[in-house]
Amino acid sequence: MSTKGSIVVFFFTILALSRASPSKKRQHVPCKQLLLYFHDILYNGENAANATSAIVAAPQGANLTKLADQFHFGSMVVFDDPITLDNNLHSKPVGRAQGLYFYDTKNTFTAWLGFTFVLNNTEHQGTINFAGADPILQKSRDISVIGGTGDFFMHRGIATIMTDAFEGEVYFRLRVDIKFYECW
Amino acid sequence: MSTKGSIVVFFFTILALSRASPSKKRQHVPCKQLLLYFHDILYNGENAANATSAIVAAPQGANLTKLADQFHFGSMVVFDDPITLDNNLHSKPVGRAQGLYFYDTKNTFTAWLGFTFVLNNTEHQGTINFAGADPILQKSRDISVIGGTGDFFMHRGIATIMTDAFEGEVYFRLRVDIKFYECW
Amino acid sequence: MSTKGSIVVFFFTILALSRASPSKKRQHVPCKQLLLYFHDILYNGENAANATSAIVAAPQGANLTKLADQFHFGSMVVFDDPITLDNNLHSKPVGRAQGLYFYDTKNTFTAWLGFTFVLNNTEHQGTINFAGADPILQKSRDISVIGGTGDFFMHRGIATIMTDAFEGEVYFRLRVDIKFYECW
Repeated sequence: MSTKGSIVVFFFTILALSRASPSKKRQHVPCKQLLLYFHDILYNGENAANATSAIVAAPQGANLTKLADQFHFGSMVVFDDPITLDNNLHSKPVGRAQGLYFYDTKNTFTAWLGFTFVLNNTEHQGTINFAGADPILQKSRDISVIGGTGDFFMHRGIATIMTDAFEGEVYFRLRVDIKFYECW
Repeated sequence: MSTKGSIVVFFFTILALSRASPSKKRQHVPCKQLLLYFHDILYNGENAANATSAIVAAPQGANLTKLADQFHFGSMVVFDDPITLDNNLHSKPVGRAQGLYFYDTKNTFTAWLGFTFVLNNTEHQGTINFAGADPILQKSRDISVIGGTGDFFMHRGIATIMTDAFEGEVYFRLRVDIKFYECW
Repeated sequence: MSTKGSIVVFFFTILALSRASPSKKRQHVPCKQLLLYFHDILYNGENAANATSAIVAAPQGANLTKLADQFHFGSMVVFDDPITLDNNLHSKPVGRAQGLYFYDTKNTFTAWLGFTFVLNNTEHQGTINFAGADPILQKSRDISVIGGTGDFFMHRGIATIMTDAFEGEVYFRLRVDIKFYECW
């Protein structure tokens, strides 16, 4: 190949390389992934010792020890739930899920979530922040990872949530498959 | 031009190319844009059938069927509002705006918003997550698009909000001009 | 050096350059930094004139003029706090911190924060949005900067929070060291 030809080849190589970063993104391959579970035990007026969450707000006519009628519309819950590596409530927690959720539809079950995973174990030290809509009745639903600190410094991604267990209005367990697409 | 000269030229071309991504950002040209409206009908104790939102929290002395005195300071509302493509409440919804807002100043009207657009129509499938301060009385104000899922996978941007209609304390309509500056 | 050799050198130069953007990120050098303070005076039923925040929600059994027992678990506060450049409550404010916090643990003091800095002065015009867990008792803790508008258009980063003063359940002052790692 002539020198001129080589340079042309390199020119296109350069073009390809200079686009490497954005096109890499478009492949949607996670740069990091975590599978975690968290467990919510809602205070119902009788389980003060075990409860990990409590209703703190509700619309007119509803009370704070029972989720509101009409698909719990307007009931808002603050939680501090244990996070585990598997689906066993009694496994050693690797951190706490802390934040709020509230039910936000009058004619079906949906919620909105704003919370943080505070991880503090040998494997992970740091926080992961989440926000998004949770159409509870769908098998799997996606929310946003809007930031992170510590080991998750500046991370962003998508968390796929599945209801792994649901026992009346007292206990539920969420499986959270966190895929980071922006790592630092 | 000599081979050496060509290489020098290419070197600077490379420099320019390698900076293409960040400088592109600085141009602030949206990679995607959406104009949507959403409609909030606040429950006032008498409009249960039509209401799309409800007061769920308020400061001491206020109640849950009337926004608090003192510029509604502390009144918190959960909503599930229809989203439309135009400013007509009765147009076919293209999704739901779900989340919360609360009034947060004692001497003027301001609010804080945390919500999600859940879009589920032929054109768009996915969610867009928002957060930010809303100085209601200003004609237009900007909040952050903090993430997205589905068609809006990992998107970030700015939403410019304008109050398109305001009828007493029962109905308002917001025009939301969403400009994504980070698309994937 | 031969032409061929030069081209090889350039090839590796190109490789290095094409990686410049991501590796720059890995250095974790802020592209912008701000040190600000904000001051929260909680309404306690008697300080209506001075209070900058109010309890708007709380779990069953708690009231709205006193933070809940059990480490204030479930008490939710809406605030509109002055931001200052130094740690003096009476310094001229450079903006307002607006949003909510709530206490979310039953056996220690932790909170969750969602709020916005609304800056409106000669030096800065724009908003900065924050979310994250706040383990209050730790000397310093990190939350996420999830977006910004105006001068902080599309910014992301980390805010390191320190409790700079704490007076009973009425006043606290937070020192907020904001480091932006993504500027536009």
